[in-house]
Amino acid sequence: MSLLVIGTVAFDAIETPFGKTDKIVGGAASYISLAASYFSKNINLVSVVGDDFSKDFLALLQTQGVNLEGLQIKKGEKSFFWAGKYHNDLNNRDTLDTQLNVLANFNPIVPELYQNCEFLMLGNLMPSLQLNVLAQLKKRPKLIVLDTMNFWMDIALDDLKKVIAQVDVLTINDSEARQLSGEYSLVKAAQKIIAMGPQTLIIKKGEHGALLFNKQEVFFAPALPLEEVFDPTGAGDSFAGGFIGYLAKTKDISADNMKRAIIYGSAMASFTVEKFGTERLIGLTQHDVENRVQQFLDLVQVDITLV
Amino acid sequence: MSLLVIGTVAFDAIETPFGKTDKIVGGAASYISLAASYFSKNINLVSVVGDDFSKDFLALLQTQGVNLEGLQIKKGEKSFFWAGKYHNDLNNRDTLDTQLNVLANFNPIVPELYQNCEFLMLGNLMPSLQLNVLAQLKKRPKLIVLDTMNFWMDIALDDLKKVIAQVDVLTINDSEARQLSGEYSLVKAAQKIIAMGPQTLIIKKGEHGALLFNKQEVFFAPALPLEEVFDPTGAGDSFAGGFIGYLAKTKDISADNMKRAIIYGSAMASFTVEKFGTERLIGLTQHDVENRVQQFLDLVQVDITLV
Repeated sequence: MSLLVIGTVAFDAIETPFGKTDKIVGGAASYISLAASYFSKNINLVSVVGDDFSKDFLALLQTQGVNLEGLQIKKGEKSFFWAGKYHNDLNNRDTLDTQLNVLANFNPIVPELYQNCEFLMLGNLMPSLQLNVLAQLKKRPKLIVLDTMNFWMDIALDDLKKVIAQVDVLTINDSEARQLSGEYSLVKAAQKIIAMGPQTLIIKKGEHGALLFNKQEVFFAPALPLEEVFDPTGAGDSFAGGFIGYLAKTKDISADNMKRAIIYGSAMASFTVEKFGTERLIGLTQHDVENRVQQFLDLVQVDITLV
Repeated sequence: MSLLVIGTVAFDAIETPFGKTDKIVGGAASYISLAASYFSKNINLVSVVGDDFSKDFLALLQTQGVNLEGLQIKKGEKSFFWAGKYHNDLNNRDTLDTQLNVLANFNPIVPELYQNCEFLMLGNLMPSLQLNVLAQLKKRPKLIVLDTMNFWMDIALDDLKKVIAQVDVLTINDSEARQLSGEYSLVKAAQKIIAMGPQTLIIKKGEHGALLFNKQEVFFAPALPLEEVFDPTGAGDSFAGGFIGYLAKTKDISADNMKRAIIYGSAMASFTVEKFGTERLIGLTQHDVENRVQQFLDLVQVDITLV
């Protein structure tokens, strides 16, 4: 099934306790597309870069089955750039530099061929741009997943609420769920957020796993304890990409299949953090992915017979 | 099988964002004994209180099958008292008052009948007292579980390491595992701590679940997302009590059974935090416990078939 991905394709410079990079490829849509490409082979990207962007990475995306007709390449302009430094615990980071560049005047245009997409992933981006994309679709996709962050809750809450009201699945982290709902208990937070529109809320807790809430039930996907967490950048985007990629591949948006999709998303995120940037998401095999998923299943495997 | 429990039996005064108590019953061994009593009916307690302590609570322990021959009741003295206030996120707390009272000169005496115990739970206490207890045993128990905290790592690390070297299972939280090992990665921390003696390390992560490490594998038990977390006091002790109580009942200390025991321990902890102090651990039925365990199993239930 066709999957439309909207989000940033950009450069990052990252510093973690384990090392430091120069400009490397980053951006929500880069991670989402790469992660999804291990499941779905009909991925359409809508984004913007400058003509300074990596030709090699674009070629790689195409090799992975990502269609770039919707990627605007702005002549003489520079790609969005973010530089950040992670604290020792890797759970917090400081932004060292943000250069919007091409993103400042980004007007996403969904090519006509993409306007009938069945799965839509709205990666983290200004909510007004996400609304703009939704308005361009000819029919409502079968499933819309939205990823966002506290930054937009702080400066564009009204627009964000309009987007949230139109989506099926919202993915945010635990502190964002608390901020958006005003509730400390994640169970209560989920009830309030689901009342805002999405039938499903996924709360990403990083090294502590992820929770899926819908009106009926709650599901928990653990995170794999890793020997080395090298760089958390893009973990949430890789999670979202694996999640929606799996759903698009299996064409099944039932709650049970979303549980499976969360495990696949978690597996993709667990790869991403093992190296800087998108490096670990390149060249994985089907076998690598399935092995990793098996590790997630083994992690919580317990045999209890209740009377 | 006989289970010997060492730890504090005390008074607490607790303030959380949801309310405030006067002096109520607390202490590691109170929670451990109560939680374990739902599994094992041959529990022997070694502790100390003043003659101000609650007669009702002691009678309750006896009703639950906890033998009190090893509980010293000091005439004219006062019980250990701790007062604390939890922050809004319930993950941090400030100690408002600590009155050692009877604990200041506590000399634990293990009654002769208890010296052949098969399961030993060393609840959080000064490491020198834990060593003292170990020295009184006639034979090594089948299983020794140790719970401790950062406070002892700060002021009595040498003694603590001597205890750790003698136990089978150590339970600490994630920041304590990092402090004890000097490693940020919990996988690496576990390797270092297991090299200190215990074959099994359980890392308690509160609302984020618990990890079990041994030399061969890692297991993760989730925490149940609760609508109300009222008071986290005693959650770790209830976890330990449910864990060792289940092992003592089933007489099986295999890694697979420890995985089951962690789920039972997590279930007992999930009850404790729903009310102040020990209140929620009183009057549970077998049915309540099994229902709660079923919720833990359902929480991670996903049906994935890999090729």
